[in-house]
Amino acid sequence: MSERILLKLGGSVITGKGGDCIINHAGIREITGMIATRDDQSLLLIHGAGSCGHPEADRYGIARGVDRKNREGIAITHRAVLRLNDAVVGALREQRVEAVGVHPMDGCLAEDGRIIAYEYRHISRMLDLGIVPVLHGDVVMDERRGAGIISGDQLVRYFGAVLAPDRIGLATDVPGVLADGRVLPVITPASAPGLVIGGSGHTDVTGGMKGKIQELLELASAGIRSEIFHVSRLGDFLDGQPTGGTVVSGGADGE
Amino acid sequence: MSERILLKLGGSVITGKGGDCIINHAGIREITGMIATRDDQSLLLIHGAGSCGHPEADRYGIARGVDRKNREGIAITHRAVLRLNDAVVGALREQRVEAVGVHPMDGCLAEDGRIIAYEYRHISRMLDLGIVPVLHGDVVMDERRGAGIISGDQLVRYFGAVLAPDRIGLATDVPGVLADGRVLPVITPASAPGLVIGGSGHTDVTGGMKGKIQELLELASAGIRSEIFHVSRLGDFLDGQPTGGTVVSGGADGE
Repeated sequence: MSERILLKLGGSVITGKGGDCIINHAGIREITGMIATRDDQSLLLIHGAGSCGHPEADRYGIARGVDRKNREGIAITHRAVLRLNDAVVGALREQRVEAVGVHPMDGCLAEDGRIIAYEYRHISRMLDLGIVPVLHGDVVMDERRGAGIISGDQLVRYFGAVLAPDRIGLATDVPGVLADGRVLPVITPASAPGLVIGGSGHTDVTGGMKGKIQELLELASAGIRSEIFHVSRLGDFLDGQPTGGTVVSGGADGE
Repeated sequence: MSERILLKLGGSVITGKGGDCIINHAGIREITGMIATRDDQSLLLIHGAGSCGHPEADRYGIARGVDRKNREGIAITHRAVLRLNDAVVGALREQRVEAVGVHPMDGCLAEDGRIIAYEYRHISRMLDLGIVPVLHGDVVMDERRGAGIISGDQLVRYFGAVLAPDRIGLATDVPGVLADGRVLPVITPASAPGLVIGGSGHTDVTGGMKGKIQELLELASAGIRSEIFHVSRLGDFLDGQPTGGTVVSGGADGE
């Protein structure tokens, strides 16, 4: 059995800013090309929504919960991210990667914004057959809030834990987690508090990167290592080479 | 809370024969129009694949199981039925029904062709919000066979049991289960053996109808009533009126 890899593509590397659902087709083609040349790998792909879903979710206030008044935001947000997912899956298939889109809304249940039930064995069977499942941040139904948003990063945490892939990587538009303008080579649960919660660190860890680190620290606490790197280093990551990024792990040696 | 209705649309009423994926747009518009005028109902919709999926599944031998040699049939079959699902969901949304496509492959796990794990609470939450989930027969991953086909009828059995809707109806291209050219008004687990297994009956129950009855008899044995009728009687079914079809129930009185 080939090595199992979980790769997350940040929304910012496959979409553009400045409007609703600006798909970065050139960026997607570049990424899927790197994947296609390594088709002996067993790959689970998860992508963020970027500008395909976030503007819609904000407009309808999905993250604050959904009732009959804003329910139409569910389908509108979901359909936006499906457009992006179709573009990623389509680019992979054009390059003869046996990719299939898998939409979290269709099978996932959350409570207060966290996944509480989500089948994963079918994803494992797809990997066994050499199929590349392509999941994404999505609107999902929520036991308390009606519906809510599940980020791609939370999916990384979930599938990282249940599938225990050999390697987990997050390709982003920054070279890693930056502190004083330099990439932190390693973050551990022990080193993280000052960083993530603010504390005394001078680190510029905000918004998306903060949420990302929190998810990855949960994995690290369970002994599961992951890595945040710039998308230009994706080939290195897929080849198991150093990426110049930030490793999030249980130990200070990055293992 | 409004009455919960589970409606299955047979593949033959929304697709045409004689080629791959011939979508019966006129038929779909007529059906979705009847649903749209009754939008106070809480509706779960399941449709068959008809010519959008069956030819592809046959070509790749999906029902016999999937390995690396015929794995491409999974995506090809799935994408065919997605086209049909998009047409149904699109027609509903054009008529201002808050419909969302939900694809079994994304969340369902089977073993030897039968569903063994499939979250349903998110479907229930959608119904609570007045959203119409639109599911369909699909390729799903299978613990023993790699992948296989789950029919819309099996989904009726599954969701009929777990969601316990107030009414379950199957709209088909025949007026009900026919015996000697006439519609059988009631089938029960007690009356069924001669019918379904063959036996001494002169009944013409074959193929698709036989599988359908077997699924519905499982529900009937659990005390859950369902009804098979001609699609032209869909309005009557939605209104809770007699459909002239066949009731499959636990007792001979059709209750």
